[in-house]
Amino acid sequence: VTTTTARLAQLDDPQLRAFLPLLYVVWADLELEPHEARDVRARLATQPWLRPAARLALETWLDPDAPPSAAELGRLHALVEGIAKTTSPRARRSLVALAESVATSEESREAARQFASLLGLVDGDEERPAMPAPATGMLLGEIEALGEFFDGPDRAVRERVRAFLGTGSYRAYGLPTEAMRTKVRGWISELAATGLGELAFPGVTCPAADQRAFMTSFEELATGDLSLLVKWGVQVGLYGGAIYALGTARHHARLQAVARCEELGCFAMSEVGHGSNVADLETIARYDHATRELVVHTPAESARKEWIGGAAHDARWAVVFAQLEVGDANHGVHAVLVPIRDAGGAPAPGVRIGDCGHKLGLNGVDNGRLWFEHVRVPVGNLLDRFARIDEHGAYESPIASPSKRFFVMLGTLVAGRVTVGSAGGAAARAGLAIAIRYALARRQFGEGTERTLLQYPTHRRRLLPHLATNVVLRLAFARLRDRHAAGFVGVGTSEVPDNRALEADAAALKVLGSRHGVDALQACREACGGQGYLSVNRLGDLRVDVDVFTTFEGDNTVLLQLVAKSVLAGYQKQFTDGGPLAVLRVVGRRVATSVLQKNPAQTRRTDREHLRDRHFQLDALRYRELRLTETCAARLRKRLSGKRPADTAMLEVQEHLVELADAYAERLAFEWFALAEAGAPEAARPALRVLGNLHVLALLERRSGWFLEDDYFEDAKVSAIHKEVAALLEDVAAIAPGVVEAFRIPDRVLAAPIAFFDPAYPRYE
Amino acid sequence: VTTTTARLAQLDDPQLRAFLPLLYVVWADLELEPHEARDVRARLATQPWLRPAARLALETWLDPDAPPSAAELGRLHALVEGIAKTTSPRARRSLVALAESVATSEESREAARQFASLLGLVDGDEERPAMPAPATGMLLGEIEALGEFFDGPDRAVRERVRAFLGTGSYRAYGLPTEAMRTKVRGWISELAATGLGELAFPGVTCPAADQRAFMTSFEELATGDLSLLVKWGVQVGLYGGAIYALGTARHHARLQAVARCEELGCFAMSEVGHGSNVADLETIARYDHATRELVVHTPAESARKEWIGGAAHDARWAVVFAQLEVGDANHGVHAVLVPIRDAGGAPAPGVRIGDCGHKLGLNGVDNGRLWFEHVRVPVGNLLDRFARIDEHGAYESPIASPSKRFFVMLGTLVAGRVTVGSAGGAAARAGLAIAIRYALARRQFGEGTERTLLQYPTHRRRLLPHLATNVVLRLAFARLRDRHAAGFVGVGTSEVPDNRALEADAAALKVLGSRHGVDALQACREACGGQGYLSVNRLGDLRVDVDVFTTFEGDNTVLLQLVAKSVLAGYQKQFTDGGPLAVLRVVGRRVATSVLQKNPAQTRRTDREHLRDRHFQLDALRYRELRLTETCAARLRKRLSGKRPADTAMLEVQEHLVELADAYAERLAFEWFALAEAGAPEAARPALRVLGNLHVLALLERRSGWFLEDDYFEDAKVSAIHKEVAALLEDVAAIAPGVVEAFRIPDRVLAAPIAFFDPAYPRYE
Repeated sequence: VTTTTARLAQLDDPQLRAFLPLLYVVWADLELEPHEARDVRARLATQPWLRPAARLALETWLDPDAPPSAAELGRLHALVEGIAKTTSPRARRSLVALAESVATSEESREAARQFASLLGLVDGDEERPAMPAPATGMLLGEIEALGEFFDGPDRAVRERVRAFLGTGSYRAYGLPTEAMRTKVRGWISELAATGLGELAFPGVTCPAADQRAFMTSFEELATGDLSLLVKWGVQVGLYGGAIYALGTARHHARLQAVARCEELGCFAMSEVGHGSNVADLETIARYDHATRELVVHTPAESARKEWIGGAAHDARWAVVFAQLEVGDANHGVHAVLVPIRDAGGAPAPGVRIGDCGHKLGLNGVDNGRLWFEHVRVPVGNLLDRFARIDEHGAYESPIASPSKRFFVMLGTLVAGRVTVGSAGGAAARAGLAIAIRYALARRQFGEGTERTLLQYPTHRRRLLPHLATNVVLRLAFARLRDRHAAGFVGVGTSEVPDNRALEADAAALKVLGSRHGVDALQACREACGGQGYLSVNRLGDLRVDVDVFTTFEGDNTVLLQLVAKSVLAGYQKQFTDGGPLAVLRVVGRRVATSVLQKNPAQTRRTDREHLRDRHFQLDALRYRELRLTETCAARLRKRLSGKRPADTAMLEVQEHLVELADAYAERLAFEWFALAEAGAPEAARPALRVLGNLHVLALLERRSGWFLEDDYFEDAKVSAIHKEVAALLEDVAAIAPGVVEAFRIPDRVLAAPIAFFDPAYPRYE
Repeated sequence: VTTTTARLAQLDDPQLRAFLPLLYVVWADLELEPHEARDVRARLATQPWLRPAARLALETWLDPDAPPSAAELGRLHALVEGIAKTTSPRARRSLVALAESVATSEESREAARQFASLLGLVDGDEERPAMPAPATGMLLGEIEALGEFFDGPDRAVRERVRAFLGTGSYRAYGLPTEAMRTKVRGWISELAATGLGELAFPGVTCPAADQRAFMTSFEELATGDLSLLVKWGVQVGLYGGAIYALGTARHHARLQAVARCEELGCFAMSEVGHGSNVADLETIARYDHATRELVVHTPAESARKEWIGGAAHDARWAVVFAQLEVGDANHGVHAVLVPIRDAGGAPAPGVRIGDCGHKLGLNGVDNGRLWFEHVRVPVGNLLDRFARIDEHGAYESPIASPSKRFFVMLGTLVAGRVTVGSAGGAAARAGLAIAIRYALARRQFGEGTERTLLQYPTHRRRLLPHLATNVVLRLAFARLRDRHAAGFVGVGTSEVPDNRALEADAAALKVLGSRHGVDALQACREACGGQGYLSVNRLGDLRVDVDVFTTFEGDNTVLLQLVAKSVLAGYQKQFTDGGPLAVLRVVGRRVATSVLQKNPAQTRRTDREHLRDRHFQLDALRYRELRLTETCAARLRKRLSGKRPADTAMLEVQEHLVELADAYAERLAFEWFALAEAGAPEAARPALRVLGNLHVLALLERRSGWFLEDDYFEDAKVSAIHKEVAALLEDVAAIAPGVVEAFRIPDRVLAAPIAFFDPAYPRYE
């Protein structure tokens, strides 16, 4: 395997791109006669533009006495396929056309032509398809259109990420923790060198900066190694993001260095005793007017900063969230920039640093612990966009209510939830592409020829609803990014951003995206059996790395309660008027009087046209959401009027809240998908239609107990839904190969050998 | 942490057991005055029986100038709790009584008494409970009775495993693969030295050998490190088990060495192209009469032996499953003993060995690949209990039908499925104990005092149904072991064992047990948030290690189809008469005429007494199983009478088969649980009752869509079930601490710091 890799690595030279398709055909389809080899090598010797290393590599690969092994040839095939994927369908019609179209210079194009002519390829080969046509129910043009649509408006940034991931070797597993961390630290520096980090800070770093583009790049990055993703997210998204959103120009000056990974930092919010309950953090930042300093202190072991990515080894700085005390007053949680290490990497005075040690996944990220022993920093280190301490030592803020201030400050950090949720989907995308490609090639059981795994109904049932959900969620996340961009408030203005509606939607989709990542990757791992358990096939690492996405950036169960409260409050501006509970009575009445009529058609119709109708589907999801809201509000009203403390009342209906929030999220995601679908190009529509149908009918099937109990569906309708799901699984099986190709994940990123388990080139490695 | 561990290690001496409770009280509750310390140390100096190292350790721990840290004291507390757990409730009434009861000699008992008297503990302390009473809704006696009942008839062997796991340090994570493997290789040798391996081979190794006891020991072992478990299972259960079940006296001679891990072997069944389809393995064992040898050969890359535990590094021998060819005839899959390495560890001639590399979990097990290049072994290496080649080169077997022979041979290996399934449950047990203890101590949110996690309905919903299912399945597995023992056919006899009914039940419970292991541990990991993601807390490793239990010893989806076919065939002896499908017509008719009357009480009653009635619960599960059997048989009949090939017909109803098999497994597990419950001692019953109710009503709730669609339940009934589940979650929350104590997992095995997250001794490590 090592020598195979080494031989392949020789070809990893832009100058050789044009030759790869020809090299492949030389060994796969032709007999290379010694005299032909001589001629070709002589021709190569006369190409002054070819670097010696590139020439040597070509000569090695053209040696008739040392033909490539099956494994090497197989990997060459994969490489060529990867190249083919980046070209137009026209260029893919033949290997020669392909070679010409990917040549990086006129010289190499001409050399490739000569090379082809020497081999007698030029004419006869024109009509031969470059690659075996993928077994797909989609036309090439449809795959292109779908891929284009998936890529969306920020396609260019996706391509930058693909180029980055596809050219380097960003994979690691089975290494000791230290080695993993060292690797990933290097990777983020390489990534920073591409300039992608600067996109994150509009108005500060570069004119092209654009948060939506940055978020999109982050999503695409999640098809690769997730330690790289999270380490990068901590540095640019959390550390840089907090400075950007909560700081002012004085602090923004450092963002260029942050984006370039020249200043490494961490985001010290969570405490060991307070993972989810941020408002009750215990760390203190006390203002000392005598010295104009803030004194950051860890008053108890439960206030220890915990799980802080980057803290164990790399971060020189931390944005520390602490209770701000000025005089006798506690002004609630604020963020303060604290140096935690000196230039040599030693802990700063008063800072104690621990290591969270080995984790289930993401071991390329150095999570650590922080304790502060009366650590003094200048008052200027307070991130003071929403609160400052003036020269007389008086606290002032444009937002009078401490609770509103807290929510506004946290709300500016909402990008984290948007990106974590969509990254869960992108990671699942890589897994689904691997598992589905394997399921198309791997055979087991059956009379006569064994069947491919994807021919088995249980295998389809395992994988394909996840594929459908993946597509639905990715389009929902695209819309969420658009909405985030639309609500963006320039950091230089004095306007106070209001992200509350966005926050609830981001929380709802974060729950769905992270849950989907976990479920889909688990299904992929199991669907690939023992192969799925081997690290080389990526599914295991993707699965365990994504596992914590359900916990960080807000524990999913906690987030669902936040969503439910937001739904119940009807998005009304009630933060300051007694909290979300105060409005329950009103909301309860409003929903109760809304007409939740059951329509006989909804209840009884069982025909395909009806079941595949977006109106019926959306109505069912909306009905469930409204009905759960109405009943939940009624239960709360009863408890509150019985003088139960609000806190106790909420606890008693906690499961109802979670169910309601789920229903909200499910409706939201599908509604946004349907809006996106309506704007999709004609050629992408058929695939979207069938994927949307599978997603939503499989969802209604899972919820059928609820719909039956509520009498919204009759028995016959549920039976019809089962049948329709079975039919849709067949439809989706036919287009699945095309859909995963439209994901446009470079082969080098897919990487798993089982993703290249083609019967023509079996590489059982 | 290292020094804490070192200081604790000093106390790891049997001579000091009696002193630990007293040392603890010295530092936790008293002020140690210098003069008292002097007196105690003087007294220690006069104890001739005390080893110098033990005395030194005590002196260090009694130094008033070097009091233990909070962490050290916390771990001492854990140690004492662990000791307390092994004693009678009476001994646990006070620390002094505890000290006296655990003293290992009269001298140490007397010394502990003197020590206590010097500290003024003897009288006043008598009435103080030794440990804070656990927050439990169960009486101590009930916990004892439940623990006793859980331990079952093979309690002694469980205690041997606990003693083994509880005294050594069998934990490892975050190490490079090689280091993990080296560690685990050492561990199985230590385990073998206890003699537990010899239990596996009745009539061969030792008089006490008893397969049920061995299987029970295996279950208990699964509360510890799962690489240790699997490595041990491969060596004794698979390699030894195959020699035992398929070989004859000539082969059995080596079992003593196998049990002692002096001869390391592996079980080479799976091939990379044939993971589940064992009948179509491609490896060949061709008989050469000229030399009386078998020639073992890998004819194609897809025949490569894959995922073979032990093959990559340690195994000297392999039991190789191959198509036996004698003359022109292929007699199907047989097992052959093949040496794969020489004494120095180099591959044997003709054997090529590969390494599967790093895996998602179980990295202490060296999974490898094997290729055979015409490897010759004497014909005597054929494991010939069911087939031999006589001196004239003729093949003979007591079982004429090749397909029946295949199933009989595979059937003798059924123990693997029994043990893997129950090990999944035992691993989950460790996880549930950790997560529930954490949930009792950890607080978050709430007005005034923050609430414990276990006070949150969503947290209960996450964890407690898994606890209930765990208990149900462990009792079902106990019965499965009993049935395995009852059907055991002595290997010396000529009787052909018939394990078919057992096989279906073992497959059904293996699916439930492995699935439960995965689901429960996933819930535990998530319920512990970021803490659950840290390797030190064990949940992550348990989760990923257990993941492959759903794949090995039979992929769960494949097994469910095997179960369904067995159900459809009505367990009739039809192996040789045209396969299980031939009987479908008969079975279909039989089931169709069975009276599946819906009883209005079943459909409508909503009162608690009814919902908690085992008859109602079992009837519902049986109804579902029968109804799915009837409808599946009808669908198959229709397809078969339409002249569809049997294979295609089965494929078309594959999802139905899986649903039917699930229903069979769910009914079986609960029925066996109910039988066990009926024989439980009085004091254990209340807990079993409520756990059984939660398990089965949560199951009926999950299946409520099916029951509603079938009109077996009315809406009001489903609503009543929801309410009852909510009530049961409260009931189970109250007894959960007691239930996990009754698991009797030593603290040292539990190991996770969050399992000792007690507010009195917060060890946030």
